[in-house]
Amino acid sequence: MEFTIQRDQFTHAINTVSKAVSSRTTIPILTGIKIVAHEDGIILTASDSDISIEQYIPAESGEHQWIENITPGSIVLPSRFLGEIVRKLPGEQVTISVHDRFVTTISSGRSQFNLNGMNAEDYPRLPQIEENQVLSMPADLLKTMIRQTVFAVATTETRPILTGVMWSLENGELTFVATDSHRLTTRKATVESAAGLSFHNVVIPGKSLLELSKILSDDDKLVDIVITDNQILAKVNQILFYSRILDGTYPDTSRIIPQNMKTEMILSTKEFLGAIERASLLARDGKNNVVRLFTRPDGVIEISSNIPEVGTVTEEIVPSSTEGEDVKISFNAKYMIDSLRVVDSTEIRIGFTGAMSPFIIRPTDHDWILHLILPVRTNQ
Amino acid sequence: MEFTIQRDQFTHAINTVSKAVSSRTTIPILTGIKIVAHEDGIILTASDSDISIEQYIPAESGEHQWIENITPGSIVLPSRFLGEIVRKLPGEQVTISVHDRFVTTISSGRSQFNLNGMNAEDYPRLPQIEENQVLSMPADLLKTMIRQTVFAVATTETRPILTGVMWSLENGELTFVATDSHRLTTRKATVESAAGLSFHNVVIPGKSLLELSKILSDDDKLVDIVITDNQILAKVNQILFYSRILDGTYPDTSRIIPQNMKTEMILSTKEFLGAIERASLLARDGKNNVVRLFTRPDGVIEISSNIPEVGTVTEEIVPSSTEGEDVKISFNAKYMIDSLRVVDSTEIRIGFTGAMSPFIIRPTDHDWILHLILPVRTNQ
Repeated sequence: MEFTIQRDQFTHAINTVSKAVSSRTTIPILTGIKIVAHEDGIILTASDSDISIEQYIPAESGEHQWIENITPGSIVLPSRFLGEIVRKLPGEQVTISVHDRFVTTISSGRSQFNLNGMNAEDYPRLPQIEENQVLSMPADLLKTMIRQTVFAVATTETRPILTGVMWSLENGELTFVATDSHRLTTRKATVESAAGLSFHNVVIPGKSLLELSKILSDDDKLVDIVITDNQILAKVNQILFYSRILDGTYPDTSRIIPQNMKTEMILSTKEFLGAIERASLLARDGKNNVVRLFTRPDGVIEISSNIPEVGTVTEEIVPSSTEGEDVKISFNAKYMIDSLRVVDSTEIRIGFTGAMSPFIIRPTDHDWILHLILPVRTNQ
Repeated sequence: MEFTIQRDQFTHAINTVSKAVSSRTTIPILTGIKIVAHEDGIILTASDSDISIEQYIPAESGEHQWIENITPGSIVLPSRFLGEIVRKLPGEQVTISVHDRFVTTISSGRSQFNLNGMNAEDYPRLPQIEENQVLSMPADLLKTMIRQTVFAVATTETRPILTGVMWSLENGELTFVATDSHRLTTRKATVESAAGLSFHNVVIPGKSLLELSKILSDDDKLVDIVITDNQILAKVNQILFYSRILDGTYPDTSRIIPQNMKTEMILSTKEFLGAIERASLLARDGKNNVVRLFTRPDGVIEISSNIPEVGTVTEEIVPSSTEGEDVKISFNAKYMIDSLRVVDSTEIRIGFTGAMSPFIIRPTDHDWILHLILPVRTNQ
């Protein structure tokens, strides 16, 4: 194998696939990046046991000549060294050539590296996916939906299924659900899909979605998504992103969302977030970051907290409107901050159903987002 | 004590003095920031056992009214909480008022904190320094001199005196010396000083200089420096910065600088740095990052290194000029990279005195900087 490639293109592709390289793996070849050269371009592949990323670089694209002098072949090179070396090479072009026993020369300008490569035949095959059931959505929408749900997945493995975000599709409406059993978030959107395509209980690891998010652009370029029994494939910009799907049944969360509110109030998202962030400065990590909220007789909402040896904090907010009973409730400030930071609307509506029952946060300008938080019992 | 201050000014001053707060201290009051209010302004003070920083904020400055409604007094407030709270307060102004038992209210807009303060009378006094022996230099020059020397101080306490940078002044020439006994750096500059002022063996902890560097601006505003037996005081922009001076005698380093070179070569700083950085990618941390340098018969300089199981690297550089014997030497790439990164000149002159003797790096365009590196013995 041999080729000469524009260094910037190569660096960018190595950075993209490197997101799938695990530094800790029991399979040595997975610490490497597989490079396959064809007449028309090269393909880089990296994988850990959860995700795999494949990037194609065409030899020519429009007026640009990215790769020259290709002799087809393949090699696996150690990813950490490859990335650092290519990033620091002096020239605009890099030449890669494989010799006997997989020794590979990387040269650029007056710089020459010889790396011990591995046999690409030993690299695990990526899953084969049939592409007749495709779902399409803009990259920025997918990125937003991930951001607005993934923070709520469980971070412990007590119930492994909760470390993922549950996707479902019905009548062209895609829904993401995440919960760690203390709070829940849902996000819906209308998407383009193959006629009659529907699924449920497709649970994708939160970590995979965070990595996918990093390679999604902030524009409306369409991402094609294919879902099989145990894999999801997302295709965008010459990149194939594969993730495993979690085994198991996601809990039915629809029933825990209360329908009849005792109190509803509308608040400025930014003001409320500021008040909760400040109150949380004097809420102790070890004690669930508890802050208290109650409606005063004059209609002002008061949020307070304290750390006994340090001091106390009191915040006031005037809601845009309040309906129903007075509220007195305690909750984990971190959950509220997480929710308020991802709601992109200027106002939110909070619905309470009692001091010991879950409460609901929704934006006032659309119905695509719903967050639920369980309150905390306190002795105060 | 009571006053109302512009929040931005207060945040900035808290950030400045906070650099002197140690999170680990055996003296609880030193985890706090002392605030003293006078009719004409307030003074913030923070200190650990090594450095102390005092910032004065005048009530008025030019057309600006920074502080209003001052009732003189003093308090010590926990620095971590104070900083986080003031940074996040909602209003443009902050009011601080001290009540019974040192409880202090911090309020802004509809936000109110009550912090448990400490008695300012219990705060240690800063050293008293007589100011008749003053040395003045531009802030950016002092910052540059620190950057060009402090990287070479010892990071272990084997010889505590080597953890500092040695300052000396004679005939208006200020010299900084740093060494960890494997490499040495010196930086000189001409400064303004009181007539007849001279000193030697003033060793200032590297950590103190790094902190001082952070509060120095990148302009030529003059910094006044006063040195006593055990303290140094730097004054700039309403800030007083104190550091202790290390006890002990700094080694006489002038004798180890070789005078007669066997080989001298002139190289592009940037090209040489790039080559060494790349060669160091395949030089092992555990083995002193050793790279080899030798002059080829064709006059090209070759730099090489290897990690047996990973691979090899060879870099070539064409020097602008070479004089004297051929060179074959091994050294720690990290020391060379540290030196080349702080030399701001485009070309350097390296002087070699033999494979086992120290070599010297100087810029070609001035004599203010001299770096010395000890080679490494190898079996190759």
